[in-house]
Amino acid sequence: MSTFGTLFRVTTYGESHCASVGAIIDGCPPGLPLDAKDVQIQLSRRRPGQSNLTTPRDEKDLVQLQSGIEHGITLGTPIGLLVKNEDQRPRDYSETDLYPRPSHADWTYLEKYGVKASSGGGRSSARETVGRVAAGAIAEKYLKLAYGVEIVAFVSSVGKIRLPSTVSPPSQVPSEDDDTVEDALSPEFVNLLKTITREEVDKQPTRCPHAETAERMTKRIIRAKDAQDSIGGTVTCVIRNVPLGLGEPVFDKLEAKLAHAMLSIPATKAFEIGSGFRGTEVPGSKHNDAFVRKDDGSVGTKTNWSGGIQGGISNGEDIYFRIGFKSPATISQAQETAQYDGTAVPIVEAMASIVIMDHVLMQHARKASSALLPAITTLPPTMVKPAAVN
Amino acid sequence: MSTFGTLFRVTTYGESHCASVGAIIDGCPPGLPLDAKDVQIQLSRRRPGQSNLTTPRDEKDLVQLQSGIEHGITLGTPIGLLVKNEDQRPRDYSETDLYPRPSHADWTYLEKYGVKASSGGGRSSARETVGRVAAGAIAEKYLKLAYGVEIVAFVSSVGKIRLPSTVSPPSQVPSEDDDTVEDALSPEFVNLLKTITREEVDKQPTRCPHAETAERMTKRIIRAKDAQDSIGGTVTCVIRNVPLGLGEPVFDKLEAKLAHAMLSIPATKAFEIGSGFRGTEVPGSKHNDAFVRKDDGSVGTKTNWSGGIQGGISNGEDIYFRIGFKSPATISQAQETAQYDGTAVPIVEAMASIVIMDHVLMQHARKASSALLPAITTLPPTMVKPAAVN
Amino acid sequence: MSTFGTLFRVTTYGESHCASVGAIIDGCPPGLPLDAKDVQIQLSRRRPGQSNLTTPRDEKDLVQLQSGIEHGITLGTPIGLLVKNEDQRPRDYSETDLYPRPSHADWTYLEKYGVKASSGGGRSSARETVGRVAAGAIAEKYLKLAYGVEIVAFVSSVGKIRLPSTVSPPSQVPSEDDDTVEDALSPEFVNLLKTITREEVDKQPTRCPHAETAERMTKRIIRAKDAQDSIGGTVTCVIRNVPLGLGEPVFDKLEAKLAHAMLSIPATKAFEIGSGFRGTEVPGSKHNDAFVRKDDGSVGTKTNWSGGIQGGISNGEDIYFRIGFKSPATISQAQETAQYDGTAVPIVEAMASIVIMDHVLMQHARKASSALLPAITTLPPTMVKPAAVN
Amino acid sequence: MSTFGTLFRVTTYGESHCASVGAIIDGCPPGLPLDAKDVQIQLSRRRPGQSNLTTPRDEKDLVQLQSGIEHGITLGTPIGLLVKNEDQRPRDYSETDLYPRPSHADWTYLEKYGVKASSGGGRSSARETVGRVAAGAIAEKYLKLAYGVEIVAFVSSVGKIRLPSTVSPPSQVPSEDDDTVEDALSPEFVNLLKTITREEVDKQPTRCPHAETAERMTKRIIRAKDAQDSIGGTVTCVIRNVPLGLGEPVFDKLEAKLAHAMLSIPATKAFEIGSGFRGTEVPGSKHNDAFVRKDDGSVGTKTNWSGGIQGGISNGEDIYFRIGFKSPATISQAQETAQYDGTAVPIVEAMASIVIMDHVLMQHARKASSALLPAITTLPPTMVKPAAVN
Repeated sequence: MSTFGTLFRVTTYGESHCASVGAIIDGCPPGLPLDAKDVQIQLSRRRPGQSNLTTPRDEKDLVQLQSGIEHGITLGTPIGLLVKNEDQRPRDYSETDLYPRPSHADWTYLEKYGVKASSGGGRSSARETVGRVAAGAIAEKYLKLAYGVEIVAFVSSVGKIRLPSTVSPPSQVPSEDDDTVEDALSPEFVNLLKTITREEVDKQPTRCPHAETAERMTKRIIRAKDAQDSIGGTVTCVIRNVPLGLGEPVFDKLEAKLAHAMLSIPATKAFEIGSGFRGTEVPGSKHNDAFVRKDDGSVGTKTNWSGGIQGGISNGEDIYFRIGFKSPATISQAQETAQYDGTAVPIVEAMASIVIMDHVLMQHARKASSALLPAITTLPPTMVKPAAVN
Repeated sequence: MSTFGTLFRVTTYGESHCASVGAIIDGCPPGLPLDAKDVQIQLSRRRPGQSNLTTPRDEKDLVQLQSGIEHGITLGTPIGLLVKNEDQRPRDYSETDLYPRPSHADWTYLEKYGVKASSGGGRSSARETVGRVAAGAIAEKYLKLAYGVEIVAFVSSVGKIRLPSTVSPPSQVPSEDDDTVEDALSPEFVNLLKTITREEVDKQPTRCPHAETAERMTKRIIRAKDAQDSIGGTVTCVIRNVPLGLGEPVFDKLEAKLAHAMLSIPATKAFEIGSGFRGTEVPGSKHNDAFVRKDDGSVGTKTNWSGGIQGGISNGEDIYFRIGFKSPATISQAQETAQYDGTAVPIVEAMASIVIMDHVLMQHARKASSALLPAITTLPPTMVKPAAVN
Repeated sequence: MSTFGTLFRVTTYGESHCASVGAIIDGCPPGLPLDAKDVQIQLSRRRPGQSNLTTPRDEKDLVQLQSGIEHGITLGTPIGLLVKNEDQRPRDYSETDLYPRPSHADWTYLEKYGVKASSGGGRSSARETVGRVAAGAIAEKYLKLAYGVEIVAFVSSVGKIRLPSTVSPPSQVPSEDDDTVEDALSPEFVNLLKTITREEVDKQPTRCPHAETAERMTKRIIRAKDAQDSIGGTVTCVIRNVPLGLGEPVFDKLEAKLAHAMLSIPATKAFEIGSGFRGTEVPGSKHNDAFVRKDDGSVGTKTNWSGGIQGGISNGEDIYFRIGFKSPATISQAQETAQYDGTAVPIVEAMASIVIMDHVLMQHARKASSALLPAITTLPPTMVKPAAVN
Repeated sequence: MSTFGTLFRVTTYGESHCASVGAIIDGCPPGLPLDAKDVQIQLSRRRPGQSNLTTPRDEKDLVQLQSGIEHGITLGTPIGLLVKNEDQRPRDYSETDLYPRPSHADWTYLEKYGVKASSGGGRSSARETVGRVAAGAIAEKYLKLAYGVEIVAFVSSVGKIRLPSTVSPPSQVPSEDDDTVEDALSPEFVNLLKTITREEVDKQPTRCPHAETAERMTKRIIRAKDAQDSIGGTVTCVIRNVPLGLGEPVFDKLEAKLAHAMLSIPATKAFEIGSGFRGTEVPGSKHNDAFVRKDDGSVGTKTNWSGGIQGGISNGEDIYFRIGFKSPATISQAQETAQYDGTAVPIVEAMASIVIMDHVLMQHARKASSALLPAITTLPPTMVKPAAVN
C-alpha cells in the first residue's frame, strides 16, 4: 500500500493530475533542525527537464511543510507536506484510451481497481515519487547529523554503455565463460565508492560521474530520442558511514528491505547488492571478505564483495547496490515515467535514506534496551561482545 | 523481524541447535483441505544431502502440525507447526571462535545483538528456512486449489555454467556491446517457463532441467568440493496462472514484495524480474509488450519482457524472476548455508507462494468490497472496467 | 503512532497552530461515489461553538480533497485531504509556560519528545481529530452504500445528569447492592438504539436525545462555565446493520479494536461494550443471550447483553458501547480539548466507522478466499456452515 | 489477528483440543537472563482449579522453551515456546451441537469462518491465553530488571460484592445523584496501589486482597455454583515504576493500547483507566492533578485521577485500570472460559507487561535517536527539556 516503514513511516498520496502530491512522515526524531530548503534541494534534483536530454518542463515543485516543525526544529509529531500539481485538470479521455498502451500500467490498474484515472496508470506515474524524495531528504538530514552518513547514487549504464570495467560494480563487468579468469573488485571501483559526491555526479547531465562514458550516454539517449524511442539504464548507489548492526533478520534483512524499497520505484526490474549476480560465479575462497584490523583500531573487511551487509546485517563497510530501470514505455512522453537517466538518482537516494533511517531507529531500540540490563557473566566470552567495544 | 505478510502472516522461530524450528501461519483461509503430507513433501525437497553433491545428512525433518486444523480441514485459526532439531546441543565453543569467520554472520550478529549463539550466526543458518518452506506449502495448496497456480523453481546457473542462451532468461545471456544486435526472448525459454514441472526439475541432482548443462554443473560442484572450495549459482522461478490484479502500489508492488521475500533468503545477493538487467539495454520500442486477444477471448501480451507484472500489478502472464546465491562462505560445511544448488529451489518456491497468497487475500478484500457498490454511471467508459469482463 | 488500520488505513498529521491538519486515507474501495460534501457534513458537526454552550468560534474547516477521486468516484488510490488552520501563528510563549498546566499533555509531551510545540500539548489538541472525522466520513459512506450500516452517537450523561434509567445502557443505571434485584435491558433503551437518528440527536444543543435530560445537562454545563469550571460526560454509540463475522481474534477482536479506537480520542478514560461493567454483576443465567429465529428467517438473539459481539466477532445484532470523557483540563479554554458535549459525537462516530470498515475489508478477504475452495465433505455437519445460508 | 505489538511482538496459536498451545515472542532484547522457571511461575498462577472455587483440573501446563535462549541468556532472536494440551482429542460432536450455545462464540465462529472446531468456539477458549501469559512473563522479566517495574492485578469485585468504598477505584464507588457530594481518591486506595504485592493477592483464593471482602466473594461464587449459575467480576491492575514518556499518540496512546490488550482477553466487556467513568462526573477544578516537586527532586502529581497517563503518555505516576469480566456463558463448564476470579489476574498482568514492553522499546528508539543530535539552541527555553533532567 502507500505506507512504508516500521518506526520511520512514510505515507504518500497523489497522482499526475490531482490537486497535489504529498506525504506524511511519522516517527522522525524530535530535535532535528529542518526547514523547507533541506527538502527542496532533493525535490529540485528530482525534477525532470534539467537538461536537454529530457523534455523541458518546469514543474517548480515547491514543497509546503504543513506540520511537525516549529522554529526550524522537528517536534517528533508527524510532518505533513505537499507539492501542488501545476496541471490539475484530469486528462481528456479519447478514443485512443480504448486501447491500453503497451507496457503501461493503464490496463493493470483498470483490471485491479475496476476504475482508472483519466491520466492512465494513476499512481504508476513518476509524479508519485515526489513524496518519497521529500521524506528521504528528512531521513537523510538525520542520518548525516547523527552518523555522518553519505548517500550518493549515480548512473552506471545507459543501454549497453557502461562505466568501463575498471570502475564497474562486479556484476556489470561482462563475465567470461572461462572461470579460470581472475575475478576481482577493481581498486578504481572501490575508490569511486569511497569518494564520489553528489556535486561530481551533477556535473554531468546524465549523472554518470565518468566524463567520457557520460558523453557516450548522452549520444545514446539523443539517438533514442531522435528515433522516437527510449532506452533504459542502471543506477548504482553507495551508502557510507552506515552504523554497524542494521537489519532485522530473518525477513527484514537490510538487503531485503533495500530491494523492496528499490523495486517499488516505477520502472525498476532488477536489484543486486555487493557482488550481486557476479558473486554467484566467484568461488567462496575468493569471495569471502577477510576481516582486518583497521588503522583506527576498528574491525573491518579487506575486500567488500558483501556490499556492506552480512547475514542481513550491516557490517560497517560501504553498502553499495545497483538497480535496473527498464526502457520507458511511453516513448514520446518520457517525462511521465521514472527516468533511467538522472532523475532516478535522487529517488534511489531517498528510498535508501528511508530504509536506513527506519533500521537505525529499530536498532537504537534494541541497543538502548539491552544497555539497561545487568552485565552478562554466565556466557562464555566468545558469545559476548566485549563491553569496551560497545 | 520474523513475521512476513499482511493478511497471510508467517512468523518463524529457531536456529541450528535449539530444540526445534517452527512457524505460526496466521490468516490461512478456512476450509482448506490440509494435512502433514502437503507440508512434508516440500520439507523433504528442502533437505540437504539428497545427492552426492552435498554432504549426506539425514535430517528427517518431520513436521508436526499443532493447531488450526481438524479432520484435515483448516479452521481459519493460526496453524502452529514445528520440526525438531536432531542435534540440539549448543556447539562447543573453542579458541577458533575468537576470530570471526569471513563472510559469515557470526560477527555482525555479535555486533548487532551483543551476544551470539554458540553455533555462530544464529538465525542466519539455512536451518531457519524450514518454517518458510512449511508455510509456503500451505499457501501453495490454497493457490493451486483456488486458481490452479503453479510455482516451479529450478537452478539456472552454477558458477559460470548457465542454461544455454536459447533457454536463458534474457539477462543471463551475455550482452554484446553492439546494440544493433537483435534482442529477443527466446521461444525455447518462453516454452520452458510454460511447461517446466517439479518432476522434471527433480530428475537432475542439481535441479537444472537441462540434462547436458546439469551434467556440467555437477562437475563444477565436484571440482569446488574437491578443492575444499564452494561455488554459487542462480535460481529461476516461474509462477503460472496468477490471477490478474495482484500487487499493492506504491510501496507494495508485487515485484517489490517478491524482491523483499527473495533477498530475505540466506546467501542471496541479487534479484531480477522479467527482462531484469537486460531490460535496461533493450530499446522501449522492442521492450514493450503488445496486447493481444488470446484464443480464449481474454486479453494478454504478445511478448513478456515485463515478467507478468506491469505498474507493480500482475497482468495474468507468467511471472518469472531470477535470484543470485553467492558462493557459500563455509567452504567445508556447505550444508549449513543456503545452498546454491537444489536445496534453494523449494525455499524460493515457498517465499513466492507466501507473497502471492498474501496479495491474493488483499485483492480479494478490494474486489469483494467494490462488488457491493452500485454500478458506476458517471464515469466515461474508458475509465471503467466493463462489468461483463469482471 | 499516527496510522490506524490494516487494510483501511488512516494516517493523520497536524496540530493547533501549524499550516493545516490533514489525513491520507489508504485502502478505500474503488468505485465509491464521494465528494467533499460527504466529508464536510461531519466536519461541520465536529466544529466547536455551534451552540451557546461552548465558546463560539467559527473554524470554517473546509475540507480540500487532494487525490484519489475523479469525477466524484474513488479510484482506489490514497485519498489525501486537508483543512487549513485559521490561526497559524505559533503561540507566544511566556513565563507561564515554565509551569506545566495540570492534567494537560504539555508536560508529558515535553518529557517524551524533549521538545514541545509552543501551543503546548501538540497533537493532544482536539484539532487533531479533524483528520479522523474526515476519514470516518469516507468509511461511513461505503458502509452505508454496501450494507446500510447506520452509526449514531449521542451524549448519554453530563456530570451526574444521566439519561433516565429506563433508557440507559445497563451499566449506567446505578447498581443496587442487593443482587436479588432484577437486572434487565430496558425495552426503552433497546428501542432507542434501534431508532435513534442523527437528526434527532442534533435537535438538542447537548446532543442528548432526551429533551428533559438535555435541558438539565445544559444547565449543568452553564453552571460549570459560570464557575470557570468544566464537567465531563459520556457518549453512547450504536452501530446498526453490521454484517455478521467482523473481528479478528485473538488480539483484534472487534471490541478490542473499538476500545483502542475510542481510547485514542483525546480526554477519554473509559469504554464499555454491551452490558459493560454492569454485565459483571448479572448472573450468567440471565446474561446469556438466547438465540431466536427472527421473522425474516435469520438467526438472532432475544436479548443483547453482548452488545452485538460474541467471542470478539459481530453477531449481527446492534453494536453499542459507551465512552467516558473526563472533565476538560483547560477550564477556560474548553474549545481546545475534546468536548464532553456534542462535539465528541462525530469523533466517536468516525472512529467507529473506521474500525468497522477495516474489519469489513478483512472479512471480505477471508470470505472471498474461502468461497473459491471446493465444498467441504469430510467434516461432520455440525462443524460446517450450511452453504445455503452463506 | 494473532500477532500483537510493534517491536515486541507476540504471536500465538492453539485452541482447546489441538496438540499444543504456544507462542513466538519476537523482539526481546538480547542479554536478558531467562529460563523456563520465569515463565512457569505465571503459567501456574494462570491454571484454573487452584482452589475449590473452580472445577479442579490439573493441567500441569509445563512450558517448553524452543529457541532464542542459550545458557540462560536471550539471544535477541525469536523465542518459540509451547505447552502441550493434555486432552488432544477433538470433541465428540453430537446432536446438541446443532443448536449454538447462548453467548458462546460457537455461532459467530461458524458464521465467520464457515467451519468451526469440534470443541466449539476455537480460539475463544481461555486455553488460548497460555501463550499470552508466557509472553508476558518474558516482558515482565525485562521490565523488572531494567526499571524495577512492578505489575500487580487483583480481583476488585465479584458480582455486586466490591472492595469497600474506602479502597475502591473511583468509578466503582456508587455515584450519588447529588453532585455537591465531595469526590476524592481515597487515601486507602492510593495506598493499596502503592503497596499491593502478588504474594498478598495470592493469599486469598479469590485473589481479592481484602480479607473480609474476599470471604464474601467466595460465598457469592459458591452460591452461583450451587445454583448451576455463574457470576462475573472486575480485575484492577496497577503498574508501578513505569518510565516517563511511554505511549505513541495519536492512535497508539498508552491507554488505547492497554484498552486494546485488555478487551482482547476472553469475556471482557469494559475498561477504564484512572478515574474512568467516575472521572466524567468530577468537575475539572477537582479532577486536575496538580504538579508537585517530590522529595527526590523529581516532578510528579499530587493526585492521580489521570491514572498515570496524560495526553496518551505515561507521566511516571502509577498506572491503574480496571477491567470488567462478564459472567461466564458456560455455566457448568466454567473452566473453559476466562475466569472472573483469580485466573484472570495473571492474564491481565501479562497483557499489561506486553503493552508496556512494546512502548518501552519504541520510546528507547526515539530517545536514543534524539540523543545523537546536536543540542537545540534556536528554541525558546520553554519549548525544550533541560538537558540536565534528561
